[in-house]
Amino acid sequence: MNNVISYLESQRSQALDGLKEFLRIPSVSTHPHHREDLHRCARFVAGELEGIGMRNVAVNPTPGHPIVTADWLDAPGKPTVLLYGHYDVQPAEPIELWESDPFDPVVRGDNLYARGSTDDKGQVWVHVKALEAHLRENGRLPVNVRMLIEGEEEVSSENLEAYLEAHKAELAADVVVISDTSMLDYERPSIGYALRGMAYMEIRIEGPNKDLHSGVYGGAVPNPLNVLSEMLGKMVDRDGRITVPGFYDDVLPLRDEERESLAALSFDEEGFAGKLGLPHATGEKGYSTVERLWARPTLDVNGMLGGFTGEGSKTVIPSKAMAKVSMRLVPDQDPEKIVRTFTDYVKCLAPPSVKVEVICHGTGKPVLTARDHPAVTAAHKAIARGFGKEPVYIREGGSIPVVAMFEEKLGLPTVLMAFGLPDCDAHAPNEKFHLPNFYRGIDSAAWFYEEYGRVR
Amino acid sequence: MNNVISYLESQRSQALDGLKEFLRIPSVSTHPHHREDLHRCARFVAGELEGIGMRNVAVNPTPGHPIVTADWLDAPGKPTVLLYGHYDVQPAEPIELWESDPFDPVVRGDNLYARGSTDDKGQVWVHVKALEAHLRENGRLPVNVRMLIEGEEEVSSENLEAYLEAHKAELAADVVVISDTSMLDYERPSIGYALRGMAYMEIRIEGPNKDLHSGVYGGAVPNPLNVLSEMLGKMVDRDGRITVPGFYDDVLPLRDEERESLAALSFDEEGFAGKLGLPHATGEKGYSTVERLWARPTLDVNGMLGGFTGEGSKTVIPSKAMAKVSMRLVPDQDPEKIVRTFTDYVKCLAPPSVKVEVICHGTGKPVLTARDHPAVTAAHKAIARGFGKEPVYIREGGSIPVVAMFEEKLGLPTVLMAFGLPDCDAHAPNEKFHLPNFYRGIDSAAWFYEEYGRVR
Repeated sequence: MNNVISYLESQRSQALDGLKEFLRIPSVSTHPHHREDLHRCARFVAGELEGIGMRNVAVNPTPGHPIVTADWLDAPGKPTVLLYGHYDVQPAEPIELWESDPFDPVVRGDNLYARGSTDDKGQVWVHVKALEAHLRENGRLPVNVRMLIEGEEEVSSENLEAYLEAHKAELAADVVVISDTSMLDYERPSIGYALRGMAYMEIRIEGPNKDLHSGVYGGAVPNPLNVLSEMLGKMVDRDGRITVPGFYDDVLPLRDEERESLAALSFDEEGFAGKLGLPHATGEKGYSTVERLWARPTLDVNGMLGGFTGEGSKTVIPSKAMAKVSMRLVPDQDPEKIVRTFTDYVKCLAPPSVKVEVICHGTGKPVLTARDHPAVTAAHKAIARGFGKEPVYIREGGSIPVVAMFEEKLGLPTVLMAFGLPDCDAHAPNEKFHLPNFYRGIDSAAWFYEEYGRVR
Repeated sequence: MNNVISYLESQRSQALDGLKEFLRIPSVSTHPHHREDLHRCARFVAGELEGIGMRNVAVNPTPGHPIVTADWLDAPGKPTVLLYGHYDVQPAEPIELWESDPFDPVVRGDNLYARGSTDDKGQVWVHVKALEAHLRENGRLPVNVRMLIEGEEEVSSENLEAYLEAHKAELAADVVVISDTSMLDYERPSIGYALRGMAYMEIRIEGPNKDLHSGVYGGAVPNPLNVLSEMLGKMVDRDGRITVPGFYDDVLPLRDEERESLAALSFDEEGFAGKLGLPHATGEKGYSTVERLWARPTLDVNGMLGGFTGEGSKTVIPSKAMAKVSMRLVPDQDPEKIVRTFTDYVKCLAPPSVKVEVICHGTGKPVLTARDHPAVTAAHKAIARGFGKEPVYIREGGSIPVVAMFEEKLGLPTVLMAFGLPDCDAHAPNEKFHLPNFYRGIDSAAWFYEEYGRVR
């Protein structure tokens, strides 16, 4: 590994230049007029992978933007990593809030500013450079590697599921590695091993068949907003427990060991609340803030609308009211089962005087990778070397749909090697990648392939 | 009275022609570009009142549209009626839904179609024609009459309160008579003797100081929509009773006699629910639908908004949420007291983790005129003669702010002689006045002045 690390040290400015070239392509997946840029970006990635010595490089068409694949499978008896990343980026709008052109990367201080610098081109580049070093210096990789770099992550990975379904065999692996998330903070490199899942629902209530005058009709008709408020108000009890019947049946209790490890993160409770303008954090009784955020399910009303909402007053009893309600789920809750029980519960809470419709806008499975999985152990050792300090184990409160997809379609666990920072402004103006982390990330990735190759 | 009634019979087509002329003036008070039409309409009313022999006719300027006043006070020892009406109308939009020009009145079948035909030009005209008949035939009125016809009823009577305050002496009377409401149904001419009041509130909740990702933050921060739903859900209990502390303290219980009289109206429960697409009416336990609508207070959420309300899903915990909540009040509830106790209650229901703001958008006092008031008795006899059948006594579930204003500023009770019909489409396209009721209304009004003159 000495030669690999030396090579990487000597190649830092080339690594940065290559990333800048990658970032100059405005591969905004949601804008149809960038379609050709997406194709150009896919060809750029494929060209780079060819260049470093990956094999079977392909730009695979989809009904949307292409998926780039490559592999290197010449390490018999060694495990196989499926490296996932994406070359598409969020729109740069509002452009006027950028201090420099989002598609003309610029280094200011310790950071490289550009759309996609952290999410996810920079973090894809970390792995490309690590693999390059192994292949250049040793003519081989320590493990088998398959790569899948898609162009639709920012538009819900619309065509990925069908691709995975159709190419199960070519994607066989032991573990998925993704670098597309953030470290806990500046000081603590992090390995993610669990994500919450989700069930996103909408409730529509119809009372009277038209809007009514609250003077003429008030008191004798069901008001959909009163009804919906009462229903929603009953869904979480005073201890912060969700009252949907059977909701907690499949929740894996946190083991003492994991609670201790989460407690050891010394999560900054006061800073968390203070930054949000809150007097204190809130949530389910009996759990710490970090447990509530990462390891306990939720029920949040994400939107609600009905009646008159302009300035002043209008004395209307609305015919209809609606609310969007999402539940974050944790292992081993089954989103489909939660959708069913939530739907039944809503119908049971609604009075017979109103019509109720319950719609599911999407689900995602919660995922959990065993903390003693060999790839997790390898990532731990690798990051400790790359960053010079032990990484912490973290969960993510959000969902990464592709992670659930890999588990569901390919049966693979995922390790999240996070090189972003919480203030990297992914999806916002002035997105940046902290360059010290970029270089430490490359070293860590190089070590990861090495360490994972030593595991068995 | 025979000569008065004969005169009216002979003058029907002239009465209709005069009303049509009145309706041709597009006196839409809310549109600034109709300002001159409002002045023209005020002058038209004043000219008519001069013409029939009313005295001291004046077009009084206000900061908005003028108030037309007139009197005839030559009946010493007789009571004085203050007749209120308005010459302004609602906008006609959406124009394309009208079957004929809203400002070119047309008779189709039994109805006269035009904006303002019922609300309120037609019902003002009823009284003008009745007074004309008395003055023409007998050279005098059976009672003293003051008239106040304003031009801002459809824009909240913005300048009326100051006018009443400044002209208390010139408006001294025994009772206010208003014809600006509707009969219970086609078959039953009606006298209104009570109105509900109102307190219109807005609740604003702020949780985190910005919108948050529900994955990253869900479970550890107060969600303003969850909080607001829970608060609103607690405000009405399962018996339909409002839980605001002290809310019912000042509510006058319905006397048995009045309950019997309301029950005798044989309110069509099934028809009421069926027309609104409801399986059944709902409301406060222990009361009939008609009691709930007219004589019991309410708490309705009139509008609610927060978070993401578009198509599909967005996983946001909103920083803010708001709801508009109005309470209909009944005698002797005091709106100001209700505003205070509601505000306190909201603040007490809110958890300490959120900021709460409670705003009052307006109040109106409930009003109740004794059913044995001499003017009510006179109206009863008059309508019985004009319509050939006994009128029913009704309350109104809505508020008529001017009625509360007359009580508050001048200490006067009001009698509502209703000649509109529930399907007259006031405020909607194709507003109409049922012509048989127009003529019966004129006869009834003529009889009212006569009967009220006989009372003492």
